[in-house]
Amino acid sequence: MNATTTLTGANLIAGQESAEGNALNAGVNPVDGRILAPFFHEATAREIGQAVREATNAFRANKGRTAEDWAALLETIAEEIENLGDVLVERVMAETGLPEGRVRGERGRTTGQLRLFAGVAREGSWVDARIETALPDRAPIPRPDIRSMLRPIGPVAVFGASNFPLAFSVAGGDTASALAAGCPVVCKAHPAHPGTSELVGRAVSAAVARRGFHPGTFSIVHGTGAAVGLKLVQEPGIEAVGFTGSLGAGRAIFDTAAGRARPVPVYAEMGSTNPVFLMPAATAARGEAIAAGLAGSVTLGSGQFCTSPGLVFAVEGPDTESFAAWLAARIEEQGSQTMLHKGIAAGFSAGLGRAAQTAGVTTLALGAENGTGDGVADSGAQGRPCILRTSGRTFAANPHLHEEVFGPASILVVCEDTDEMTSLAAGLEGSLTGTVHMEATETADASPLVGCLEDVVGRVIINGFPTGVEVSHAMHHGGPYPSTTAPSTTSVGTRAILRFARPVCYQDYPETLLPAALTNGNPQGIMRMINGERTRVSISSEPAA
Amino acid sequence: MNATTTLTGANLIAGQESAEGNALNAGVNPVDGRILAPFFHEATAREIGQAVREATNAFRANKGRTAEDWAALLETIAEEIENLGDVLVERVMAETGLPEGRVRGERGRTTGQLRLFAGVAREGSWVDARIETALPDRAPIPRPDIRSMLRPIGPVAVFGASNFPLAFSVAGGDTASALAAGCPVVCKAHPAHPGTSELVGRAVSAAVARRGFHPGTFSIVHGTGAAVGLKLVQEPGIEAVGFTGSLGAGRAIFDTAAGRARPVPVYAEMGSTNPVFLMPAATAARGEAIAAGLAGSVTLGSGQFCTSPGLVFAVEGPDTESFAAWLAARIEEQGSQTMLHKGIAAGFSAGLGRAAQTAGVTTLALGAENGTGDGVADSGAQGRPCILRTSGRTFAANPHLHEEVFGPASILVVCEDTDEMTSLAAGLEGSLTGTVHMEATETADASPLVGCLEDVVGRVIINGFPTGVEVSHAMHHGGPYPSTTAPSTTSVGTRAILRFARPVCYQDYPETLLPAALTNGNPQGIMRMINGERTRVSISSEPAA
Repeated sequence: MNATTTLTGANLIAGQESAEGNALNAGVNPVDGRILAPFFHEATAREIGQAVREATNAFRANKGRTAEDWAALLETIAEEIENLGDVLVERVMAETGLPEGRVRGERGRTTGQLRLFAGVAREGSWVDARIETALPDRAPIPRPDIRSMLRPIGPVAVFGASNFPLAFSVAGGDTASALAAGCPVVCKAHPAHPGTSELVGRAVSAAVARRGFHPGTFSIVHGTGAAVGLKLVQEPGIEAVGFTGSLGAGRAIFDTAAGRARPVPVYAEMGSTNPVFLMPAATAARGEAIAAGLAGSVTLGSGQFCTSPGLVFAVEGPDTESFAAWLAARIEEQGSQTMLHKGIAAGFSAGLGRAAQTAGVTTLALGAENGTGDGVADSGAQGRPCILRTSGRTFAANPHLHEEVFGPASILVVCEDTDEMTSLAAGLEGSLTGTVHMEATETADASPLVGCLEDVVGRVIINGFPTGVEVSHAMHHGGPYPSTTAPSTTSVGTRAILRFARPVCYQDYPETLLPAALTNGNPQGIMRMINGERTRVSISSEPAA
Repeated sequence: MNATTTLTGANLIAGQESAEGNALNAGVNPVDGRILAPFFHEATAREIGQAVREATNAFRANKGRTAEDWAALLETIAEEIENLGDVLVERVMAETGLPEGRVRGERGRTTGQLRLFAGVAREGSWVDARIETALPDRAPIPRPDIRSMLRPIGPVAVFGASNFPLAFSVAGGDTASALAAGCPVVCKAHPAHPGTSELVGRAVSAAVARRGFHPGTFSIVHGTGAAVGLKLVQEPGIEAVGFTGSLGAGRAIFDTAAGRARPVPVYAEMGSTNPVFLMPAATAARGEAIAAGLAGSVTLGSGQFCTSPGLVFAVEGPDTESFAAWLAARIEEQGSQTMLHKGIAAGFSAGLGRAAQTAGVTTLALGAENGTGDGVADSGAQGRPCILRTSGRTFAANPHLHEEVFGPASILVVCEDTDEMTSLAAGLEGSLTGTVHMEATETADASPLVGCLEDVVGRVIINGFPTGVEVSHAMHHGGPYPSTTAPSTTSVGTRAILRFARPVCYQDYPETLLPAALTNGNPQGIMRMINGERTRVSISSEPAA
């Protein structure tokens, strides 16, 4: 039985439609500004409380579920999303203005991510199982039998992000990793794509039902302003929060969670300038190619990627002037682009304006107003690609130039020399990524810069571009504040599961009460640490009592 | 060259004595109330800033240090502590009132812990190295070479705890794990054992000098009130905080760190009631032995252990009455005990008084006022062991009975049946430990209780007692708030190192710029994840470009 594809505008609470509230929201097509049916009912306080209570019930009811059960649930969600077919693709396009190819690609990334986490749950070693067998004869005191592993933390609140309406939204990376860890999810739908959210929410609920999980394992609530989201974060039953979005919203959620009587962790991925540094020999050898790649990275998806490069540093001289001219030419070829919604376009315009009006900052290149882009009339959600230019000194003196401007823009900072570039790198705020272009001959010269960069970002890229985040075991998508509120965690890649678990230690347990991963038999054959050694072997004899 | 054992009362900032402040503190012998020379100079704002600046400098300067260098530093600290000899033992005894055997035992635990973390650093697999080799021919887009591992988070502020003046203080678990991760430490000395702190601080500084580390790798600052500690937490250069102590102080530190312009994680281990549950058959079969063990656990170290059992649940009936009588007899045998300082004794007295005056709460047993204990005159720091008794209903109706009373006391909660006991377990606040005594025949009956307990504690113990925390790989010493501010982390055992690290991802790096753990050769032979497989093998060929 597939999930229905008829939108109702209701919240989905433990598999049931609920539409108690009178506050309404609707999707808007950012291309033409038209409102899209139906209206969505903002969740009431009672509905939010109900969703969290059901999640708590589900957390207890799901205790007997095996790793294989959770893996199957994730795979079934992927299937149900695919079963939504073109209805989903069309609704995403209508609500976000994103082109069809991007939407289909993002759907593949989303289902691939769900299956990747299914694999992590099924393989099972992520739980970091550790066993120390008893030493009853140890002096001066015997050692008990001690076993520990990561266990699900409890109900998780997930906030859908506007810029990836599938991959970072209702069934995106936060939901996939929380479910893989064994946690129920209450999702706050992003108000810019409520129909997409309902469709995907129905797919998740259908999978929960098909796999026989407690219905409270997944709920989705709608809301436009801050109230619904902050109410959700305040619910005592919520144990952790996943968020991707703006610094303002992320910080409000972090502050709310930290201010609770019982604070809970917030994994917020927020603003990032993703600085790019050009070493002199690279600029000389590959300036034109770097300019082309950078222009593509800055304008990809209307600059609405978390890893969009907002700052470019180069060393003054004729090679950098040539690079600047190539970059300008590439940007000027581009027309204005439809952004996700009017609010994002307005924020882009305001942030860019503030930077552009700074003394010492000039406009290097501006895309055409209604040119070779998607060629539609301006609905108020258009953004013009832009490159500003300034000096290292002006950049250092104006902290607001260090802030993210979300959209297709970047600032070229021309430095006096590599030392100034390195010193500016060391002073940057936290960012998801940092990139260095360098020739093999200047590896030693670039070493101090690369070292500084490592301290302020989550991922350092050599001779590439920051957009395009591989979803894999080794990927890290995080970084020091303000790029995230939790620099020890990632929101992309399989380490993301660690956010939604906590160690629990079992001392002198009878085998029958232990979680499977800690039993002597090691039925999943996972990698464990036994008396300090990493191994997949089982423990043959009964542990000493 | 050994560290000097002459106390000066100065702060130690990057290896230099500094005594700029006029605010003074002194140790007090809790046994006789006498003030101990010398006076200690509370750190000024300038000194605190200087310590953190030097830590930041050290963080950069230490980048080239290998895992072996850090291991050697930790081992040298252990040696230097041993070299302090009886001067240290005597000072600890004078400042804390703890008996000699306990102090020598705790010193062994402290040096053992430093050597355990040296082993973790040397072995190296803790960094969770992950490698995905490039797939240049992958369609639709090539995969870059992606490598990631845990790297030190930066300068760490460590707060010494009063109840373990060695093992949870200047060179305790927080400092050992932070250094093992490669982080400099600025330690805030506990004002109740300033001389102990200076001695151990000198040992650490001597080891830093002997091993040629940057002197800013370790500093120690003194302070009595909240000001010095909170100023330290507010320093922008501090990247994480380790704390063991009261809920009030821990929450103030957490709130301060969360309120920074750039929030940082706080790993605070705070209050815990460590509930113990007695299943009926166990009470019947082993009531006298359990009573004896429990009386020992409640009064161990004057009840000043993080894991001291503050709540005991049993099911009403004649076996529980016998148990209560045995417990009362064991407690009444004990005399009053010297606590760590007057403030702790006053807090114990106030907390216990509040609980005892609750309607429905009676006093089951009270130790002798100046009886068979250490037999000294009351200096104002004495605590009388005490067991209160109440019903499950009264306990449920009085939330203040759920709060920790730090000292040698416990509340016996007599429940109507196992169901009431289970329901009370589910409603408890977070705790470091939970204990169940049960016979093999009642494993199935106890299963719901054990399941509930797992959700609210960090460690569940079957048929044992919570005091006595093994320092090992599998130990977990943490739990949901209020027992900690970060339930996904531990402050005891080798997982503690993970608190002071964050993943960094290296994309398309030249081999020469990679950290050793991520190079193809795998020089330490650590366990890594290569293309999804866990292995210790090296990568033989150069990765594809």
